[in-house]
Amino acid sequence: MRSKPVYREAAWFKLREMNDVVIRGRKGTLHFIRFPTSEMGNFLSLARSKGLTNLGNIVSATGGGAYKFEEDFIKEVNMKLAKYDEFDSLIKGMLFVEANNRTECYYWSNPTDDNLCAKVNYDFSNPYPFLLVNIGSGVSVLAVYGHNNYKRVSGTSIGGGTFLGLCCLLTGCNTFEEAIELATGGDNTHVDKLVRDIYGGDYERFGLPGDLVASSFGQMNSRDKRSKVSREDLARATLVTITNNIGSIARMCALQEKIEKVLFIGNFLRVNPI
Amino acid sequence: MRSKPVYREAAWFKLREMNDVVIRGRKGTLHFIRFPTSEMGNFLSLARSKGLTNLGNIVSATGGGAYKFEEDFIKEVNMKLAKYDEFDSLIKGMLFVEANNRTECYYWSNPTDDNLCAKVNYDFSNPYPFLLVNIGSGVSVLAVYGHNNYKRVSGTSIGGGTFLGLCCLLTGCNTFEEAIELATGGDNTHVDKLVRDIYGGDYERFGLPGDLVASSFGQMNSRDKRSKVSREDLARATLVTITNNIGSIARMCALQEKIEKVLFIGNFLRVNPI
Repeated sequence: MRSKPVYREAAWFKLREMNDVVIRGRKGTLHFIRFPTSEMGNFLSLARSKGLTNLGNIVSATGGGAYKFEEDFIKEVNMKLAKYDEFDSLIKGMLFVEANNRTECYYWSNPTDDNLCAKVNYDFSNPYPFLLVNIGSGVSVLAVYGHNNYKRVSGTSIGGGTFLGLCCLLTGCNTFEEAIELATGGDNTHVDKLVRDIYGGDYERFGLPGDLVASSFGQMNSRDKRSKVSREDLARATLVTITNNIGSIARMCALQEKIEKVLFIGNFLRVNPI
Repeated sequence: MRSKPVYREAAWFKLREMNDVVIRGRKGTLHFIRFPTSEMGNFLSLARSKGLTNLGNIVSATGGGAYKFEEDFIKEVNMKLAKYDEFDSLIKGMLFVEANNRTECYYWSNPTDDNLCAKVNYDFSNPYPFLLVNIGSGVSVLAVYGHNNYKRVSGTSIGGGTFLGLCCLLTGCNTFEEAIELATGGDNTHVDKLVRDIYGGDYERFGLPGDLVASSFGQMNSRDKRSKVSREDLARATLVTITNNIGSIARMCALQEKIEKVLFIGNFLRVNPI
């Protein structure tokens, strides 16, 4: 599997490389390969055809796949999986990356003002306690009190998988990158019903501003409005629906757990220019 | 507006009647007429053509429309609106209905067992404090401590409007009744990604059962799976996504406010056989 053409010949591979890395005195290239678990059969066939069966190694694995595909690994390529819990690995990996790259953790200052808004590095050297919101296909919210001390406090099934799944259904796109690209050019106010669409302005008594989304996709019951909406608008509305919901759940968890620091991580946040 | 044909001639009217009602010694029929606010222009034209302009009455009104359409009422039919706050009216109306019809408030016993599951009336005579989850186009969560003592503690834009809007987009249906009918015959596990789709079974360490939805619409990134899914499945998945999310937010609010009684009300819950 060491030569590039091996994994490059399969279209379902995504690749990152780190060259000239020294580990225990040996120098080489680290290859980070990403593919959806639906391609696991293809991956194992390829690995088998390239002679991986003869190495008989133990491979570290985490996540649901470490359980679901364990037997396949033994049968197909004679490899055992050393299984690690997904959340344990997540927190350790996150702390490792943050310790080794102090610009990984950031926030946006003046987020509501497009002109003043700026990316600011956050000093995470004294982290505990913090809330970790991991946005994958679904969302898990963990309250982290120390290196090995955390609990899963909440979660929602409305996550990155929902964004991609709905975008594929609503716009005919096929990849996460396409969906984000569409969302970048769209306007959710053509799709959602805002407080001002109901009240004509703000609902002042309860502090609900007119431009707040009152009902996600709330205008799409009208055949007339459906005919005027673009693919970009639909993708943007999907993104806004999901991110607002995650933000709201994170806020409630932070209040409940009395934790002030909230960290958002996960595969959903990659290639996201918005 | 008293004779039935007047409002029956307009297709956008929905009607309920209460016959032989006695109010202050006078007996008659109460007509409850429902139409979407997008038809307000049509309603005012009809009202004008039927001579409502000459009555010069004050009409009680609540909700966003009482603000948004106030001028139109004065201009078009010479009627003033006596505006009442939406949440005040909601709580008073809910307590009135409950006091006059003790079977309005109910819960499902054994909700996870289709055979044992049963509708049970709930005694709401000693209500405070309770959490009121009002599911309209969007959702508001109110913590109610007494007859005139409440606060809006949370809400979500993912409500009935989202269900209907998404169902219209995904299935081509046009009404709430159609959308619910479709959802009744569908299976969300063809659309959603469950914990067992990721883990092969339960994620035991964190108490996540295999049949829990891990990612709503999480299978719909696959072109192959999209081609196999039915309109009914998509409507059901939309319903499950929204109701699970509302339930989860209500649970978090109940924990945060330390309130044990949670009451779900709102237009979204009508004609819902599921």
